[in-house]
Amino acid sequence: MTTIRKLFIANRAEIALRIVRTARRMDIATVVPWHQQDQSGPALAEADETVEVFGSPPVAAWLDMDAMVRAAIDTGCDAIHPGYGFLSENAAFAQAVADAGLIFVGPPASAIELMGDKITARRFAVTQGMPVTPSADEAEDPASFEKRARAVGFPLLVKGAAGGGGKGMQIARREEELAHAISVARAESQRYFGDGRLFAERFVEQPRHIEVQVFGDSYGKVIHLGERECSIQRRFQKLIEESPAPALPVGLRDRICDAAVKLAAAAGYVNAGTVECIVSPDGEFFFLEMNTRLQVEHPVTEMVTGLDLVELQLRVAQGEPLPLRQADVQFSGHAIECRILAEDADAGFVPDTGKVLLLGAPAGPGVRFDCGVTEGAPVTADFDSMLAKLVVHGADRTLAISRMRSALAETTMLGVTINNDFLSRVLQHPAFARGETDTGFLERHKANLVPAVLSEAERQIVLAVAASAAPDISATRIPEPYASMGAWRN
Amino acid sequence: MTTIRKLFIANRAEIALRIVRTARRMDIATVVPWHQQDQSGPALAEADETVEVFGSPPVAAWLDMDAMVRAAIDTGCDAIHPGYGFLSENAAFAQAVADAGLIFVGPPASAIELMGDKITARRFAVTQGMPVTPSADEAEDPASFEKRARAVGFPLLVKGAAGGGGKGMQIARREEELAHAISVARAESQRYFGDGRLFAERFVEQPRHIEVQVFGDSYGKVIHLGERECSIQRRFQKLIEESPAPALPVGLRDRICDAAVKLAAAAGYVNAGTVECIVSPDGEFFFLEMNTRLQVEHPVTEMVTGLDLVELQLRVAQGEPLPLRQADVQFSGHAIECRILAEDADAGFVPDTGKVLLLGAPAGPGVRFDCGVTEGAPVTADFDSMLAKLVVHGADRTLAISRMRSALAETTMLGVTINNDFLSRVLQHPAFARGETDTGFLERHKANLVPAVLSEAERQIVLAVAASAAPDISATRIPEPYASMGAWRN
Repeated sequence: MTTIRKLFIANRAEIALRIVRTARRMDIATVVPWHQQDQSGPALAEADETVEVFGSPPVAAWLDMDAMVRAAIDTGCDAIHPGYGFLSENAAFAQAVADAGLIFVGPPASAIELMGDKITARRFAVTQGMPVTPSADEAEDPASFEKRARAVGFPLLVKGAAGGGGKGMQIARREEELAHAISVARAESQRYFGDGRLFAERFVEQPRHIEVQVFGDSYGKVIHLGERECSIQRRFQKLIEESPAPALPVGLRDRICDAAVKLAAAAGYVNAGTVECIVSPDGEFFFLEMNTRLQVEHPVTEMVTGLDLVELQLRVAQGEPLPLRQADVQFSGHAIECRILAEDADAGFVPDTGKVLLLGAPAGPGVRFDCGVTEGAPVTADFDSMLAKLVVHGADRTLAISRMRSALAETTMLGVTINNDFLSRVLQHPAFARGETDTGFLERHKANLVPAVLSEAERQIVLAVAASAAPDISATRIPEPYASMGAWRN
Repeated sequence: MTTIRKLFIANRAEIALRIVRTARRMDIATVVPWHQQDQSGPALAEADETVEVFGSPPVAAWLDMDAMVRAAIDTGCDAIHPGYGFLSENAAFAQAVADAGLIFVGPPASAIELMGDKITARRFAVTQGMPVTPSADEAEDPASFEKRARAVGFPLLVKGAAGGGGKGMQIARREEELAHAISVARAESQRYFGDGRLFAERFVEQPRHIEVQVFGDSYGKVIHLGERECSIQRRFQKLIEESPAPALPVGLRDRICDAAVKLAAAAGYVNAGTVECIVSPDGEFFFLEMNTRLQVEHPVTEMVTGLDLVELQLRVAQGEPLPLRQADVQFSGHAIECRILAEDADAGFVPDTGKVLLLGAPAGPGVRFDCGVTEGAPVTADFDSMLAKLVVHGADRTLAISRMRSALAETTMLGVTINNDFLSRVLQHPAFARGETDTGFLERHKANLVPAVLSEAERQIVLAVAASAAPDISATRIPEPYASMGAWRN
């Protein structure tokens, strides 16, 4: 066991602050990097030390493995916490940290390699008896692809093997639509990713996104800390997460959690990880992917378990055994997280930038506000649009929803448009109250999620504007070094 | 059952904001009063409406029953929540509110009369078999007072019957000290309260202050929501409160809680109340008094039970039955509250005033910050020096303590000196960690509670200054109409 004395946080904004808070409590000193374009975060104010990093665009600084490791060494740190996004799921980075003689607060590089890659993780999951959606891979044998795809069954999702972000995807609902879907998907994939190879998998309609928080230590013990439902998504980006998952039968919940623990244990997984699944309306679940780092939405798990996941990460990284057994994990009440984004939800969800002139943070019973910006700070397009996470806890889901709505009303920002009103409309939708939360929720109910003060005619105009103004972010090919940046969003 | 639609909050600062938050969640509109000398609280920003009130000194406005009732009626409210302090334990006010046809969010006037007065409550407690400290009252028979006092046993506390705030109190540890104690106490009582009548009670040394949160509804049901320990006090003012009480045997805890419920039930008590006891080092407990309103430290109970006490108050006031039985009350983890005061703890705890130039609010997992001031606001001597309450929750007491220390370090105020460093030193004292928390804690450990950065010589100077500069607040007789103002502090 090695005691961490000084921790380099290779991240920024709210998650850097989140890690500083737990580190301070554990008497671990912290170092947080800053950039000429990013000098005003609260994490920088709360960290024991800060260090300038360089890059253009600014995110390049946080993606520069060598620079991050060097900054950690130069500031006398003995460990690096990668947070989420940036280099957090990069096996080479985990290895570089270890090679430099520092502790990587996360799984070993080998586990990231095995479980962090979608294809290898899927194959490994199959060997462990974890259900995956039936699929056919063109790479295996191009000649028989269409035949094998047909055998998977309909509806079928045809997508570029190199794709992502929704582009190059076609749904064939019936056999006669398959040839057309393949030809369109191939053309789109070629255009967007320079790679026309395809992959087909059974399309699960109206699925719920259910994920399991797992934790392993260096002594082979793996436990789970319950599930989270993250079905309220927009363009594959999670917006609202909660725990426990509404409308998930206990038996199914337990099967998914057990399968996730079994998978992580078989992979020799260490530290925090999340096994993501989709659950079909008829209660089938399929392995989606594993995220080999702390998740954005980890606070909902903290609120229902009373555990501090960053503390567990640091302790496990120090070589300590997990301080609790599965039976010790107690679940209490219901927690919901809303992502507070700098965007104009009523004008096509276009990201907003500006200067935070006034920030009114919500508080009160059961309310937690993890905020990455301060008054006076610029909000630029250089970084992700998520400014803060609002998390609430209540004895039951009804209380948590009402608490969230009240806290959203209390959240004030002048200078930058945030999405709190939109989130509040989602939360007060009767279908949300009924727990009818599948990934199609926002699309299905969009007409009822525009501001209520509008007349029907005005609402139609807003909807038309929204439809035309929506920036097609997936159409923009992100330069390769930064392509992984959006991945933590899910 | 009458539904409350619009609530007048006859209070200010953090507790007004606290009540606004729950009311908003319950779709109850709120009205909060303001004064020329008190215009900038966050409760005013969050309330649906505000209304100006008048008085000089400003506190007089909040003590003016007629004006409060009139303001509630003028703004179309159907209920009044008194908060704590001010008129909250005034039976005449509760009656005036009811007479005006409004709902008083608290017990009926008759219950306040019975249990809110220390002498009648003590007598009633005796009839219910609740232990009280053995005592002798001079008023009963002046001639036999000394003899009856001697029979009570030593150590004996001799105090003015009309007294309070520590003045006119003398401890006689042995029989031969009694005559002197009586003569000094009588002289002091005559000087400070214009009333030389005495009362003697057994002096419990190094007691713990343990109190039980009780809740009754209009249908005769009374439950308790566990205990709080509030032994860390300075000059009879609570400074740190926690739940559950450390080092309290489970059997004793249950006996105290059961006795509190029995007492409240016998009194026909309705709404939130607190039965305060002292517990001697050998495990005897004695009834101290009952507070017939929401307590300052109610958030620690909210954190360990997951309940919203203001919601319960509003529902019971509406005539709803309590929504849970005793067996439904679940306790989870450990919660601690620290009172953030505008005072210089290292210079004799002298209250500070000024303008809040910068306010850095703590947040993060398990942290709640109920704050009554905003940046730019003046902090004056017109109101109590408590600016905010910092409350934390953790799976156990050790975690709660470390969380509180981290959160105190994160609490920043420029422009007005606050006591966060002093609180942090209390929390890191080994005796606090061991749960050796009786009401003598601060006095006993004061030499170890000065800033650690000082040399021994410097520390002696600070202690000397502290001893001389300590304002003898109890020596100042507060004008009668405001004399009850400090009472909510306990």
